[in-house]
Amino acid sequence: MAEEINANYSALSKRMAAIADLNSAASLLQWDQETYMPSGAGDARAQQLATLYGLAHDQFTDSETLRLLESLRNNLANLSDTESRSVDRIWRDYQRKTCLDRDFIERLSIQISRSFHAWEKARKEQDFDLFAPELERLTELKREEADRIGYTESPYDALLDEYEPGMKASELNRIFGVLMPELDRIYRIIASNRVVQHEDELAFALSEDKQWMLCRDVLEMIGFDSHCGRLDRSSHPFSIGMHPSDVRITTRFNAEDLTVALWSTLHEAGHAFYEMGLNAETRGMPLSEAASLGIHESQSRLWENQIGRSMAFLRYIEPAFLNAFDGKIPHDFIGKLHQKLNRIEKGLIRTEADELSYHYHIYIRYQIELDMLEGRLKIKDLKERWNGMYETYLGIKPGNDSEGVLQDVHWSHGSIGYFPTYTLGSIYASQIFNASLNEIEGLNQLQSKENLAQLKQWLQHKVFKFGRTLDANSICRKSTNNDLNPTEFVNYLETKIQSIHPYLAL
Amino acid sequence: MAEEINANYSALSKRMAAIADLNSAASLLQWDQETYMPSGAGDARAQQLATLYGLAHDQFTDSETLRLLESLRNNLANLSDTESRSVDRIWRDYQRKTCLDRDFIERLSIQISRSFHAWEKARKEQDFDLFAPELERLTELKREEADRIGYTESPYDALLDEYEPGMKASELNRIFGVLMPELDRIYRIIASNRVVQHEDELAFALSEDKQWMLCRDVLEMIGFDSHCGRLDRSSHPFSIGMHPSDVRITTRFNAEDLTVALWSTLHEAGHAFYEMGLNAETRGMPLSEAASLGIHESQSRLWENQIGRSMAFLRYIEPAFLNAFDGKIPHDFIGKLHQKLNRIEKGLIRTEADELSYHYHIYIRYQIELDMLEGRLKIKDLKERWNGMYETYLGIKPGNDSEGVLQDVHWSHGSIGYFPTYTLGSIYASQIFNASLNEIEGLNQLQSKENLAQLKQWLQHKVFKFGRTLDANSICRKSTNNDLNPTEFVNYLETKIQSIHPYLAL
Repeated sequence: MAEEINANYSALSKRMAAIADLNSAASLLQWDQETYMPSGAGDARAQQLATLYGLAHDQFTDSETLRLLESLRNNLANLSDTESRSVDRIWRDYQRKTCLDRDFIERLSIQISRSFHAWEKARKEQDFDLFAPELERLTELKREEADRIGYTESPYDALLDEYEPGMKASELNRIFGVLMPELDRIYRIIASNRVVQHEDELAFALSEDKQWMLCRDVLEMIGFDSHCGRLDRSSHPFSIGMHPSDVRITTRFNAEDLTVALWSTLHEAGHAFYEMGLNAETRGMPLSEAASLGIHESQSRLWENQIGRSMAFLRYIEPAFLNAFDGKIPHDFIGKLHQKLNRIEKGLIRTEADELSYHYHIYIRYQIELDMLEGRLKIKDLKERWNGMYETYLGIKPGNDSEGVLQDVHWSHGSIGYFPTYTLGSIYASQIFNASLNEIEGLNQLQSKENLAQLKQWLQHKVFKFGRTLDANSICRKSTNNDLNPTEFVNYLETKIQSIHPYLAL
Repeated sequence: MAEEINANYSALSKRMAAIADLNSAASLLQWDQETYMPSGAGDARAQQLATLYGLAHDQFTDSETLRLLESLRNNLANLSDTESRSVDRIWRDYQRKTCLDRDFIERLSIQISRSFHAWEKARKEQDFDLFAPELERLTELKREEADRIGYTESPYDALLDEYEPGMKASELNRIFGVLMPELDRIYRIIASNRVVQHEDELAFALSEDKQWMLCRDVLEMIGFDSHCGRLDRSSHPFSIGMHPSDVRITTRFNAEDLTVALWSTLHEAGHAFYEMGLNAETRGMPLSEAASLGIHESQSRLWENQIGRSMAFLRYIEPAFLNAFDGKIPHDFIGKLHQKLNRIEKGLIRTEADELSYHYHIYIRYQIELDMLEGRLKIKDLKERWNGMYETYLGIKPGNDSEGVLQDVHWSHGSIGYFPTYTLGSIYASQIFNASLNEIEGLNQLQSKENLAQLKQWLQHKVFKFGRTLDANSICRKSTNNDLNPTEFVNYLETKIQSIHPYLAL
C-alpha cells in the first residue's frame, strides 16, 4: 500500500516536473521576447507560447493526473505533511484548471490579445474609448471565469485566488479599512507642516553605461549570484525564474535619474532571491513554487524599500556610486539621495509613487475592479470614476487618459485581482523585515555583505523553503509570529518619516 | 473523399506545426545556453531540453501521425505535387524515428552526454585515451542505430541519411575520387612554385568593440534583416533558426585577427539567409525545412568564400573597414586582406584551413568514420590512423591530441556522417554561385547592396523556396541545370588561384 502511494507520488512529481520544464521553456521565450528577440518574430513567438502553454494545460488536466491525485487524496495519512499539503495544492490547481475548458481558454486568450493591442493603441492616442469596448468584452469573460470557478462571497474572490490563494475581497476591505485612514492621517500631517523636501535633480544624472556598471556593482554587493542569474535591459523591468539556478532580472535606464535603474534592479533582485531560494530538487511541485504574489512582492519591496531606502544601506553602497562617478561624487550625495528616495508627494503615476501614496493608487484600482466584477460599475463610466477618485484621494486630475486610466497594462492582460497583491506585499515586507531586525543582530546598524547574507539565510529559512506548501498567511506567521497586519506597515512608515522629519508630531 | 484528404492533410500540418513549436522552443533554449545562460543553469537546461525533445518525439511517433500518413499515402493522387512530396518526406522521417524506440534514444542520449564530457576533459588534458572508451561505446550505439534503421550497402549510409538524405558512401567515394587527385595536383603546383604568399599579420589586429561594429556594418551591407535576426557572441560560432522571422547567428573574436569574427559572421549569415528564406506559413512541414546539411552549408560557404573572399566584395565593404579603423586604414589593406584570405597553406586545424586544404581534413575524417562504422578500424588504433593520415595528406603531425584527433566536437556528439556535408557544401556552393553569375548580370563586376539583393532573390527562387520537398541533388539541378559535380569546385579554385598567381601553369 505504502509502496503504491510512494509510486503514485513519484509519478505525480514526474508529471509536474515535465510540465515545469514546458513552463520554464515558455518563461525563457517570454524573457527573450522582452530582451533580445528580433522585432519581426512576434507572431511566431505567440504561436510557440500558445503551443507550450496548451501542452502544459493538456498534460496537467489529463485523466492520469486525476487518477494519481484521487489515489493520493484517499491516502493522505501515508504521506508526510509536506507531501500531503503538496497534493492538496495540486488538487486545487486541478479543480481550478479543469473548470476552464480548452474552448474558454482560447476565447479568453484571443480576447486578451485583442484587448492588449487596443490598450496599446489607446494609450498611444490617449483615448480610453479605443480600449473600452475590448475591456468590456474581457471583463465579461473574466466574470464568466469567476462563475466557472465558483465563489461564495464575491466573484472577485475567484479571480483574486489565482494570485493570492485564500485571500478574499472581504479581507481586503478590512485591510484597506485599517490602512487608508492611517495613510490619510500621516499624509495630512506632512502636507499641513509644509515639510521641506529638498531635491537636487541634477545630482542624479548619469550615463547609461555608468548606470549599468552601478547596477552590476550593487548586485554584487548584495550577493546576487551571477552563476544563477543575470541582469538585462527591457522597457519594463521584470524578473522571471526558469529554475532556482536560472533567474533573470531586467531594468531600464533614465539618463537623468539613476534611481530609476538602480531601484528597479533592487526590486527585481528581491524577486530573484526568492526564486533562487526555492527548492531546486522538486521542480513543478509546490515546494519549488512561490506561495503567492503578495509574498513574492514582499521580497522585492523588502530589498527596494526597507533595505534600499535606508541610510545604512546607502552608506554601504556609497563606494559603488563613487566608482560610477569616477570618484567625483556630488557633494552630500548620499544625503540628497536619501531625501529623494523618501520624499512623500502625491502624483499621477503608480510606478513613480512613494511608499505612502503608492497605496492610494492600488486602493483606487481595487475599488474599480471590484465594482466592475460585482456589476456596480459600467466600463463606459470607468474613466470618469478613475478621474474622480484621483481627485478625491490624490488631489490631482490626469491631463490625459494615458497618464490616467490607461497607465497600467494589467487589465488589458485580463489581470483583474492582481493589484491588491502589491499592497499585501508592502505589508508583508514591513512585517517580515521587522522580524528579521529582531532576530539578526546588527542588521540595522550596518549593512554589509555579511549582514545581507545573514538576512538572506534567515529569509531562506523563514520564507523561501516552504514554497507554496504553506499559504501566505502561514508563512507570515512562521516568519513573524503574527498574522498579516497593516498596522505594522503604518508603524514602519511613521518611524521612517519621523526619523527624517523629527519635528513632525505623528 | 477529396474533402477527407484535405482534412487529413490539414490535421497533419497542424500536428507538424505544434512539433515545430516545441523544436523552436528547444532551439531558443540552446541558443541561450551558448550565449546568455548563467553558468549554473546547465543541469536544469539539460532537463528542459530532454523534456521538449521527448515530447516532440512522442507527438511525432504516436498512432495518430501514422493514421494520417497512411490515409494520405493511399490517396497521393488527390494531393498536389508539393503536398505529396511532403507526405513522402514525413513518412520517411516517421519510419526513421519509429526504428529508434524511447529506450534506445535514452541510452544514446546518456552515452552522448558521457562522451561529450569525456571529450571535453580529454581535450583539456590533450589525452585521447580519456575519450577512447566513451567513443567506443558511442560508436557501438551508432552501429546499432544504423542496424535499426537499415541499409543496403553500408551502415554508414543509414547515418549519413540523417544529414544528407539520399546520399551514400559509394557516391561519396566517387566524389572524393574525383576531387582529391585534383586538389593534390593543384597543391603540388603551388608548393613546387614556392608561390609568394604575403601576409602582414599586424594589419589585422583590431579591438573587439571595433570588430563588433565592423561585423554589424557588413551585415547591414549584405542586407541581413535585423527585424528577423540578430548577431551575438559565443565561443563557437553557429546559426540557429526558430522561424524565418527569428534567425540568430553568433561569432567569436580574436583581437589579433579581425578575419576570424568577420568571416565567421559571413558564414553564419549565409546559413541565416537560407533559414529566413524558408516558407513562413507552413512551419513544421517540409516546405519550411532545409533540404540537407550539404545545401545548408552551400549557402554559408557561398557567402564566406565565393563572395567573401573575392576582390570585388572586399572593395565593396572597404567603407566598413575604414569606419572600424577610424579612417586610418592600413596601407593597401584590401590587397593584403585578399592575399591573406586566399593563402593556400596546409595546417593542422580544420576550422582554420584554406578553401583547398580544408577538404583533406574532411577526407581524413570521412575515411576514419567509414572504417569505424564498417568495422575496419578499432577505436584504439584511431589516433595512430589520424596522425598517419595527417602526415600522408597534409605533411604535418599533430603536436598533441588536442590539435589532432580531439580537435572537433562532432564525434563526441554522436554526429558520425556529418563531416562529408562540409565538402558537399563547398561543391554545391561553387555550382550554385556559378549559375547565379551566368544569370545575374553584373554580379561579378561590382558587388553592391542591389547586386546582393538580386542574388538573394535568385537563391530564394532557385533554392530556398523548395524547402526539403526536393532532395539536394534536385535542388542542384533546379538551380544549376546540373547534377552535383566536384569538377566545378575544382574549376572555381583553379580560376581563383590563377587570377591571384597568373604565372602558375594550372
